[in-house]
Amino acid sequence: MRNIKLVIEYDGSRYQGWQRLKTNDQTVQGKIETVISKMLEQDIQIIGSGRTDAGTHAKGQIANFHTDSNMTLQEMHKYINNYLPQDIVVKKVSEAAERFHSRYNTTGKKYTYYIWNHCIPSAFNRKYSVHIEENLDIELMKEAVKKLVGTHDFIGFSSLKKMKKSTVRTIEQINITKEGHMVKVDFIGDGFLYNMIRIIMGTLVEIGTKEKDIFCIDKVFETKTRAYAGKTLPAQGLFLEEVYY
Amino acid sequence: MRNIKLVIEYDGSRYQGWQRLKTNDQTVQGKIETVISKMLEQDIQIIGSGRTDAGTHAKGQIANFHTDSNMTLQEMHKYINNYLPQDIVVKKVSEAAERFHSRYNTTGKKYTYYIWNHCIPSAFNRKYSVHIEENLDIELMKEAVKKLVGTHDFIGFSSLKKMKKSTVRTIEQINITKEGHMVKVDFIGDGFLYNMIRIIMGTLVEIGTKEKDIFCIDKVFETKTRAYAGKTLPAQGLFLEEVYY
Repeated sequence: MRNIKLVIEYDGSRYQGWQRLKTNDQTVQGKIETVISKMLEQDIQIIGSGRTDAGTHAKGQIANFHTDSNMTLQEMHKYINNYLPQDIVVKKVSEAAERFHSRYNTTGKKYTYYIWNHCIPSAFNRKYSVHIEENLDIELMKEAVKKLVGTHDFIGFSSLKKMKKSTVRTIEQINITKEGHMVKVDFIGDGFLYNMIRIIMGTLVEIGTKEKDIFCIDKVFETKTRAYAGKTLPAQGLFLEEVYY
Repeated sequence: MRNIKLVIEYDGSRYQGWQRLKTNDQTVQGKIETVISKMLEQDIQIIGSGRTDAGTHAKGQIANFHTDSNMTLQEMHKYINNYLPQDIVVKKVSEAAERFHSRYNTTGKKYTYYIWNHCIPSAFNRKYSVHIEENLDIELMKEAVKKLVGTHDFIGFSSLKKMKKSTVRTIEQINITKEGHMVKVDFIGDGFLYNMIRIIMGTLVEIGTKEKDIFCIDKVFETKTRAYAGKTLPAQGLFLEEVYY
């Protein structure tokens, strides 16, 4: 059996997220599986590196699937992009090692969150960022970020209820940069809990507007309580940039 | 009477262009006039710096209108952006001189055309560029551009039939830059004929792929014949960047 690996880019605006649903499927996984199954004339299930929420985008989602087809990689690549809707693009098709598994083998991920920080909204960035009118204190946000980097139990920064599995994660880097009116926040870590980046972003924004002080972060870690963190920012500002193996 | 000047940004994807139509209006001008007329409780017509085609975008379209309302600029700005659809944004509202006219007073315009030049399409740039798979010879295109800059009769690079009015225009600058897979072509000139930039772009692309040689440009100028120029590239790659007065 061949194991085929895909690098996928998608504009999540029109989709209910990555993971296939049973009914009324308007998911990225569903769209791709439909095209590949038709192409190979067999029922194909693809394994993604992880879910993304409804509205979240990806520039480097990874997935793999098994097949005994002898179609060339080039033929597959051409066919898939030809039949996928234009807002989903397979950037690369390659042969992976037999035991490669897109989800189990990840060692880390990079996400980026975009904030359009200006009193006037943007006609072009509206679907790819969240609009925050109030001026953000970037220096204060950079101070706050230092408290988040490292290994912590992030349960208070997630939408999870009490979990049996570990909710300890390591964030290796958070970088905040501003270009024009766009604030870009990069996250690199070994894994992220459900809604974790969007809640961290909500907290950072409330720190940047001085609704919260930076010590609220310590409070969330100490008490493991979601209520001390900021609001969950919308999915549309979030991009899965890269998956590491 | 006050003369109010607007700087307008719009994602042209959903619109039939700038200029208002009589029926089934889905135009940028129409949307803005409806909002302003409601705001001022009087029938307002706005004067744009010029038309843009269906699907063409703008980052700095200029328009003006007259009113005797005593609403403040700030109140107007807030109201207008609040009621416009999200893909049209008024970036600035200001008081113009009594005789200022958005169309008659222009001294020049800047447009940009974007080409996504890669074998794989882009999920994010699909509405804001044209996708050309074949590798473009940028150096050759830069050579060709030298023949276009200056004062010429551009009738052969337009969709106009024989005109009574002059079709002589001056292009001051054309700059081609490439960043990653995106080729960006800036045009600055005193004015552009109907479809002129899109036809010039089609010609430059055919030169870049070597379907045409650069002397076709001389031929278009000499014969004033559209047929020697390249195809008209789609509107979606074109942005009106700035209007000069």
